[in-house]
Amino acid sequence: MRMGVLGSGMVAQGLSARLAELGHEIMIGTREAEKLRGWQSSNQKVIIGSFAETAAHGEMLFNATSGQGSLNALSLAGEENLAGKVLVDVSNPLDFSGGFPPSLTVFGTDSLAEQIQRAFPRTRVVKTLNTVTARVMTHPLEVANGDHHVFISSDDVDAKAQVTALLRSFGWIHVFDLGDLSTARGTEAYLLLWLRLYGSMNTGMINVKIMK
Amino acid sequence: MRMGVLGSGMVAQGLSARLAELGHEIMIGTREAEKLRGWQSSNQKVIIGSFAETAAHGEMLFNATSGQGSLNALSLAGEENLAGKVLVDVSNPLDFSGGFPPSLTVFGTDSLAEQIQRAFPRTRVVKTLNTVTARVMTHPLEVANGDHHVFISSDDVDAKAQVTALLRSFGWIHVFDLGDLSTARGTEAYLLLWLRLYGSMNTGMINVKIMK
Repeated sequence: MRMGVLGSGMVAQGLSARLAELGHEIMIGTREAEKLRGWQSSNQKVIIGSFAETAAHGEMLFNATSGQGSLNALSLAGEENLAGKVLVDVSNPLDFSGGFPPSLTVFGTDSLAEQIQRAFPRTRVVKTLNTVTARVMTHPLEVANGDHHVFISSDDVDAKAQVTALLRSFGWIHVFDLGDLSTARGTEAYLLLWLRLYGSMNTGMINVKIMK
Repeated sequence: MRMGVLGSGMVAQGLSARLAELGHEIMIGTREAEKLRGWQSSNQKVIIGSFAETAAHGEMLFNATSGQGSLNALSLAGEENLAGKVLVDVSNPLDFSGGFPPSLTVFGTDSLAEQIQRAFPRTRVVKTLNTVTARVMTHPLEVANGDHHVFISSDDVDAKAQVTALLRSFGWIHVFDLGDLSTARGTEAYLLLWLRLYGSMNTGMINVKIMK
């Protein structure tokens, strides 16, 4: 499938490389193409484009920009280029203005995922993968042989099913359907615990498993 | 050990009953003693007292009041009665002013646990158990045979060790030391995910296990 990944950081790079490896036609969208030239030399199947070109290219899109810049990046991508498409939002609204550890820019009664959905009502926003580090997103079997959970939230049941299938292609075994997009308030808030787990364990190669 | 449990809800009742069962001398502190008479008839080892009486009674104390009322309840308990003692804070700063699901009254750059510690600097605040429902707090083996984690946060290493020993007496196998009290920002924020898990699974008899 043609897919567009918005962002140029480790998450965007990791997603693009993995999706290309799985046979998808990937464009990575950035305002800083030069920053990606070195990376691209070992990922030659991935095309570099602007945000708008990348959004136009993809039948399915990924928001892997930094949370504070996501709404602006998506505006640059263009409302028409996003319309009708599944947008997998893997970002977190981290607020580093007070230093580390960060707080969140939106919280409790709203979420970044919902802000994006309201800003782009014709786009089918699916929140997922934001609770794990970049490597775990795309290679879940590298943590506890995949015996842990990823969460998925969306108002669009069909979009959620499409993204669940994609997650399974990454190797995800346990995909936990939390419900509508407002449940992203939970997974975004969880980042504040994740950051502390990361701090304690000195590795991001971790995740949670829901036990009952 | 003489212990005081502040609060009169399900969490306070469950903690008091379990601690009494384990042989501790328990007083439960409330402003509404009448509310507890029926419960007490089947928990006759537990004494009912005021907040101040309960704080004076306990060598170790539990804050099991509702988060929004915790600072006021602790003020009523009395700074002198709390001084020098370990206070196990199991509360969450849930804000139901906007309906259900709740938000939090404090978040990101602060936590209820830290607010309590600042208000009562001579008290040894330990945050734990707030990430599970009342029954799981005291009977962890009833979920997945105990194969899941409880978190613990405190600035006082010795207090943390004492509370860890108590948690083990409840049956907790995996006690995750997150670090200083600021890490309670993580476990308090996690409540917003927990509430969504509860909503999806229709049971509070759940928890997370950290996988690596």
